[in-house]
Amino acid sequence: MMAEGGFRIEKDTMGEVKVPADKFWGAQTQRSTENFRIGGDRFPREMIRALGVLKKSAAITNEKLGLLDPKKASVIVKAADEVIVGKLDAHFPLVVWQTGSGTQTNMNANEVIANRAMDMMGIKLPSKEVHPNDDVNKGQSSNDTFPTAMHIAVGEQIHHRLIPMLEKLHKALENKQKEFKDIVKIGRTHLMDATPLTLGQEFSGYSTQVKHSIQRVKNTLPHLYELALGGTAVGTGLNTHPKFAVEAAAEIARETGIAFVSAENKFEALAAHDALVEVSGALNSVAVSLMKIANDIRLLGSGPRCGIGELHLPENEPGSSIMPGKVNPTQSEAMTMVCAQVMGNHVAATIGGATGHFELNVFKPVIVFNVLNSVRLLADAAESFTDHCVVGIEANRKQIQKHLEQSLMLVTALNPHIGYDNAAKIAKTAHKNGTTLREEAINLGLLSGEEFDKIVKPENMVGPSR
Amino acid sequence: MMAEGGFRIEKDTMGEVKVPADKFWGAQTQRSTENFRIGGDRFPREMIRALGVLKKSAAITNEKLGLLDPKKASVIVKAADEVIVGKLDAHFPLVVWQTGSGTQTNMNANEVIANRAMDMMGIKLPSKEVHPNDDVNKGQSSNDTFPTAMHIAVGEQIHHRLIPMLEKLHKALENKQKEFKDIVKIGRTHLMDATPLTLGQEFSGYSTQVKHSIQRVKNTLPHLYELALGGTAVGTGLNTHPKFAVEAAAEIARETGIAFVSAENKFEALAAHDALVEVSGALNSVAVSLMKIANDIRLLGSGPRCGIGELHLPENEPGSSIMPGKVNPTQSEAMTMVCAQVMGNHVAATIGGATGHFELNVFKPVIVFNVLNSVRLLADAAESFTDHCVVGIEANRKQIQKHLEQSLMLVTALNPHIGYDNAAKIAKTAHKNGTTLREEAINLGLLSGEEFDKIVKPENMVGPSR
Amino acid sequence: MMAEGGFRIEKDTMGEVKVPADKFWGAQTQRSTENFRIGGDRFPREMIRALGVLKKSAAITNEKLGLLDPKKASVIVKAADEVIVGKLDAHFPLVVWQTGSGTQTNMNANEVIANRAMDMMGIKLPSKEVHPNDDVNKGQSSNDTFPTAMHIAVGEQIHHRLIPMLEKLHKALENKQKEFKDIVKIGRTHLMDATPLTLGQEFSGYSTQVKHSIQRVKNTLPHLYELALGGTAVGTGLNTHPKFAVEAAAEIARETGIAFVSAENKFEALAAHDALVEVSGALNSVAVSLMKIANDIRLLGSGPRCGIGELHLPENEPGSSIMPGKVNPTQSEAMTMVCAQVMGNHVAATIGGATGHFELNVFKPVIVFNVLNSVRLLADAAESFTDHCVVGIEANRKQIQKHLEQSLMLVTALNPHIGYDNAAKIAKTAHKNGTTLREEAINLGLLSGEEFDKIVKPENMVGPSR
Amino acid sequence: MMAEGGFRIEKDTMGEVKVPADKFWGAQTQRSTENFRIGGDRFPREMIRALGVLKKSAAITNEKLGLLDPKKASVIVKAADEVIVGKLDAHFPLVVWQTGSGTQTNMNANEVIANRAMDMMGIKLPSKEVHPNDDVNKGQSSNDTFPTAMHIAVGEQIHHRLIPMLEKLHKALENKQKEFKDIVKIGRTHLMDATPLTLGQEFSGYSTQVKHSIQRVKNTLPHLYELALGGTAVGTGLNTHPKFAVEAAAEIARETGIAFVSAENKFEALAAHDALVEVSGALNSVAVSLMKIANDIRLLGSGPRCGIGELHLPENEPGSSIMPGKVNPTQSEAMTMVCAQVMGNHVAATIGGATGHFELNVFKPVIVFNVLNSVRLLADAAESFTDHCVVGIEANRKQIQKHLEQSLMLVTALNPHIGYDNAAKIAKTAHKNGTTLREEAINLGLLSGEEFDKIVKPENMVGPSR
Repeated sequence: MMAEGGFRIEKDTMGEVKVPADKFWGAQTQRSTENFRIGGDRFPREMIRALGVLKKSAAITNEKLGLLDPKKASVIVKAADEVIVGKLDAHFPLVVWQTGSGTQTNMNANEVIANRAMDMMGIKLPSKEVHPNDDVNKGQSSNDTFPTAMHIAVGEQIHHRLIPMLEKLHKALENKQKEFKDIVKIGRTHLMDATPLTLGQEFSGYSTQVKHSIQRVKNTLPHLYELALGGTAVGTGLNTHPKFAVEAAAEIARETGIAFVSAENKFEALAAHDALVEVSGALNSVAVSLMKIANDIRLLGSGPRCGIGELHLPENEPGSSIMPGKVNPTQSEAMTMVCAQVMGNHVAATIGGATGHFELNVFKPVIVFNVLNSVRLLADAAESFTDHCVVGIEANRKQIQKHLEQSLMLVTALNPHIGYDNAAKIAKTAHKNGTTLREEAINLGLLSGEEFDKIVKPENMVGPSR
Repeated sequence: MMAEGGFRIEKDTMGEVKVPADKFWGAQTQRSTENFRIGGDRFPREMIRALGVLKKSAAITNEKLGLLDPKKASVIVKAADEVIVGKLDAHFPLVVWQTGSGTQTNMNANEVIANRAMDMMGIKLPSKEVHPNDDVNKGQSSNDTFPTAMHIAVGEQIHHRLIPMLEKLHKALENKQKEFKDIVKIGRTHLMDATPLTLGQEFSGYSTQVKHSIQRVKNTLPHLYELALGGTAVGTGLNTHPKFAVEAAAEIARETGIAFVSAENKFEALAAHDALVEVSGALNSVAVSLMKIANDIRLLGSGPRCGIGELHLPENEPGSSIMPGKVNPTQSEAMTMVCAQVMGNHVAATIGGATGHFELNVFKPVIVFNVLNSVRLLADAAESFTDHCVVGIEANRKQIQKHLEQSLMLVTALNPHIGYDNAAKIAKTAHKNGTTLREEAINLGLLSGEEFDKIVKPENMVGPSR
Repeated sequence: MMAEGGFRIEKDTMGEVKVPADKFWGAQTQRSTENFRIGGDRFPREMIRALGVLKKSAAITNEKLGLLDPKKASVIVKAADEVIVGKLDAHFPLVVWQTGSGTQTNMNANEVIANRAMDMMGIKLPSKEVHPNDDVNKGQSSNDTFPTAMHIAVGEQIHHRLIPMLEKLHKALENKQKEFKDIVKIGRTHLMDATPLTLGQEFSGYSTQVKHSIQRVKNTLPHLYELALGGTAVGTGLNTHPKFAVEAAAEIARETGIAFVSAENKFEALAAHDALVEVSGALNSVAVSLMKIANDIRLLGSGPRCGIGELHLPENEPGSSIMPGKVNPTQSEAMTMVCAQVMGNHVAATIGGATGHFELNVFKPVIVFNVLNSVRLLADAAESFTDHCVVGIEANRKQIQKHLEQSLMLVTALNPHIGYDNAAKIAKTAHKNGTTLREEAINLGLLSGEEFDKIVKPENMVGPSR
Repeated sequence: MMAEGGFRIEKDTMGEVKVPADKFWGAQTQRSTENFRIGGDRFPREMIRALGVLKKSAAITNEKLGLLDPKKASVIVKAADEVIVGKLDAHFPLVVWQTGSGTQTNMNANEVIANRAMDMMGIKLPSKEVHPNDDVNKGQSSNDTFPTAMHIAVGEQIHHRLIPMLEKLHKALENKQKEFKDIVKIGRTHLMDATPLTLGQEFSGYSTQVKHSIQRVKNTLPHLYELALGGTAVGTGLNTHPKFAVEAAAEIARETGIAFVSAENKFEALAAHDALVEVSGALNSVAVSLMKIANDIRLLGSGPRCGIGELHLPENEPGSSIMPGKVNPTQSEAMTMVCAQVMGNHVAATIGGATGHFELNVFKPVIVFNVLNSVRLLADAAESFTDHCVVGIEANRKQIQKHLEQSLMLVTALNPHIGYDNAAKIAKTAHKNGTTLREEAINLGLLSGEEFDKIVKPENMVGPSR
């Protein structure tokens, strides 16, 4: 049991350290809090949870392989379960900006689980009866556990948050695509008036982007499923049981319900984090897609009187502290800011991924921090954007019709009939004179009014010729 | 036939323009050369070729669909064939920094093919008997042809250059992996001495990285195979035959031998270039992998006398203009510079991809320029690095053995026997005293010499316990 | 006074909202917490403080100009003082991922200060007797206050944290430069052995980098000092007193002790954040410098037995959970991870800065979040790296001497005497034969032993010829 | 004299090499062409010119110091002059993707100048009578010459192209600012209608951005002026005359008319390229500014009938191969593409700058390539954008007036009179009913029509209250 108040003395191979008596962490965690007072970014909950999953699975596997005393294994599993559900988060004080292997956070998990296990067993701390290295970390090293936890955390977040939220957004866009399928509107290329399409077609572009986004993320999963566990120290598996790697990975797959497997090559899995850089690249692509969509939607909703104004976006809050009655496309703004951040995070992950040396990449914390951050931001923003913007979008049919009628680019329908050069002449003359295409087509003697009306029908211009 | 010397007068919808008489381009190309004197980057050969492939396939398809006079189709195909093989490259003068839709380069192709076709027919220029818009560009718009050419060019380069060169590099690394499989050496984590592995295992990490790199690039191909062609103007397919999109894509697939298909959603294919941003993300991952490998190899080859010196790299050239006899890891340097460039190119492509509006992304030229550039640089650098570095790498067995013998991290083998804390004591004492582990193990009374020798065998430390 | 427990009903122009009774925020803040459940990043303390500084200065100025009732002004100032010192941080719940103008956080400040002011006056909430818009935000709009707070926060952090910590690092490096000024060592270019220099000269490169870094950051300050305040709504200053801008800026300068001034052009100050992008660029340069230095130091300290090993770095913590006795360059690792993050943050800030529209850039929160984050990370990491690494660095003179003696590049000293080609012959022969330069110089008949000894003196090679 | 046709045999320290007989380059250049078949990017003209300036200045200085035979010096200067003016560009075949020190390009310059010098002297090649290393490279090493040439090239381009072109753009924007100073228009924040400003004020934001851009670039020059020359090999100046560094820098300053000086610390100048990363950061800021301006201008010119349409942009070319009469904002497109490229280039330069080791950064070619590329692109694009867009911009007064009249945000003028909440009520009611502010102000009984007319005058809303 933990003493109340004050400090207790913990030890590691470098000597004694004072640790707050009400905390389960040990000497190495304590040293890290003192040596790395940098920024305020702790590892997110998902990473702590992943370490719990890992330590639990390792203990179960070690017991099965006859390497760990069943009684010890049992309390380690119980303590790890508390880590998994978040009961011990207050005992994980370390920041991202520590050793590049994440060793200190692995040791934090080892220490907390060992101490909490002993606490459950009624053993007075400090004690090494359950040893953080020899028992909790058995058959493991930071170099293989930390990247394993990285993959577990990112994999879980992608499965449980990112893909569902992208699917939700996709569904909402697809619904709008159907709802708007008969609204013919002017198209815009180069920001300039172009030939018509339906508002549904316009939204089909968005929903297709999100559909592909989901596929892009899924494409990166097979490599992400590969776990480094079992590749101790430099990847060789020194001091592990030959069956440990495969069985522990299977245990993790059981615990998470995700198809994790033991990595085919452990040397690659420690020395590089290409799998996570690849995930980050997919997230970057998703951000590119979502920035386009969010931008378009705010531009289509711009105005209400001096912009494009073809969409009504939901009014969620007052928009200005000085301009009364102003309503702004704030969900698009949050989304585009998130996208900018994800693109920046991707560069940080890329640089970290490229800058490893020999048997160990030591940018592990910064890589997983950025990838987890991007996954969370995209998932949360997709949900917020769907709920507070997309589902409430309405078409401003009056404005859409007004734009459609006055556009000069309907002239394109004439190309197959009078040729590009003649059609251009009509459009340019109408532009110059502020007149309609129909008027100028007749004036220039190129078509009769009836011919014009027969050919230039916006609703016939939204697909290939028939 | 082209007049010799001087200029001829070409016309477009804006009026007359003087064009050099010995060039096949027309008015719109000429305007672009005058309006965009920015930088010196022309589109690479691959892009010009892709436009040739596209125009040829479109002409064949239009003829099949009965939309284009067979005689005209035939000369258009012939002229396009000359574009494909590079005969008309001098007639493509435009730079990347032009209109963001690539319209001017699409028109350049239309004009050159039309004029060259008429030239073949003996028609005196200027003439519009074969019309650049109405004939060569029939059923097309820049907005769908240019992205189609982007996908063709990148797809061809990936198939014909990047993947083969990555496979070549992979093979060379795998050969070294086999060659070095029995050389036990010291591992390094955090740049510090760690437990041993074989040099073959170390190289297996590299070859695995390249194997995965190839897969990453392949993962992006399905979306890249989708062609925008047929989605004229704003994606609707206005003024195209309903069968044009699918048949022209099939024709392009035939012409290139690559599995191109018509894009499922043309609106997405014009308005966004997520497929290319995804490719760029994969290239960024490849660059991350190759930077790690090239860095490791030059560090392992550092010295020859005051560095790590475990590898001999090929000596390709004198290394210094002032230090006689110096030889440098220049292939690693070229490779890492290429990787830095690819990472930068990826940011440019990302920003371009994210910043489209409405029905058309107008960062097309900058996106394809960066992606093609990255593909080429990675392919060329992979080839150069393989031929001039990897295949000639030799192990410096003497140096490797020396390092292995003196490392303190062999102590790790003792963990399961005497526990982590005792093993640490041995290592630290030996480090302090400048002695060997064996000496201190005995001095500290933790193990006999015989026990030590039985346990601490580097060759037994390169895999899980048996 | 605030009611205890439960909720109270606050109102804004959109209607009623339930707010926790123990919080001072109002309706608009509450809406934001409900509409933006994205990520977990709140604005850092520095930004809240800056809003307090701003609101205080505005109230003082408004009172001076006769626009605000002195009694109201007085309680607003008191409440703002509580914001400044951090007493009310719990009342600022909003995340970065909100409206792109930061309006909701400006309103958060207005609401908290108004409510706290009324609370001090004994007025029961809800009430608008002190009005968040009409009183606290008087003469202001979010569009000018938020960028003003951005500049105040970044300016204060640069002055109070970044520059002092960079100066501390510079001093520590300079001390090492002096301490090591007489230690002649081998130089390395391309990672290969090169001609000698002193360890002090090597460190002079580092200290010069940091000296320039400080100057680079200072170069960006003049533009950062320009405050948008007074440029209400779209930059015109509508509804502000003509003297407000200049006097409020002077008040802020007094309050902070930093030379803030009113921006010459308010339109630029709202619509763009180039000043902060410029700061971010300087931080990116600093990160580039620090990454080089931290990398070099860990490479020079690599080993201890199988690396370069010319430096002893402080041993701060056990380095491995499996390899006993291992000590790693963890401060370099934290520093290089920070640098990677700063480079990523810079890209996010760049994209945000480039993507504004018309009269208002709406990437304000993401820009200031990244810049403040980078400033903090660099300052903290510089301090940690100085205290836990640089000051404790020791030269391993034995290893340095060993390397110096065996290097072949001392041959360079012979160039002026026997020419580059002959010198190269000596070096190459010695390399091939594993012999010394002296031996081969004699063997090849190019120099006598005496001549060699006279010319090849490492200590004479660390500067221009004399 | 060069032999005609075929090859000649050149030698370096590695042996004999066949070189095309009509080229002045030597063995080391030839080896590079064979070992580095990567990409197609040669160094730009400016870099070749800079090497000429450098070699000329070094020869003059060496002669003055009595280290170089005057006759040799004289022909070296003559040959270098030919390099400066571009006569020998065909003799510089090397690509960027070579050794990271640029040694091969330095040797290329040495070889070409030596051979051309001997050619002038009537000496038959091959010969080393004028020696590329001992004479042309006297007192130099690639490690100090190449970075010196980098600074010369970038410095000249900034002085002669970038700053003048940014000043030209600034002047053009300032002219528009004056021309438009009396046109009151609606402002837009969040893309939504806001309070009015003048079109001149809007342009004043742009011109201020460019003014600051110029200052940002200038801020980076003092460090750029520092030249590495004289810091041979590892920065020590080994084998150089003590006066060489300062005198050669002075000679370069004379030759270029730019205030170049000898770097205070040569170790920093070889081992890092922070000065160029800083320049790149300034260019990145410039790109951020120009992207904002170019984006705004195309949005303000969007339409002509279905967009914002407040500006008429010059019509430079037909805009579409399918939509007759379409005109697009192509100069904005080229500019924004250039800006995306500059941002990407900056990341490449950043990574290159951060990844040096020990005494030499070996990303020199990729760094200078990207910085020179960015300088050129920004200068050219600024010129093109000015000439083909800005100077021809016209205000569409009719559309501007229409927007102004119908905006609801004029209601902001009422705040000081009836309070924010009442003003909001008027705006919201008018928005709901599609009526005017005036109507609803009267209907709601908040103001009489006369009061309204007195307060709500757009022309009075474009500055602080009076």
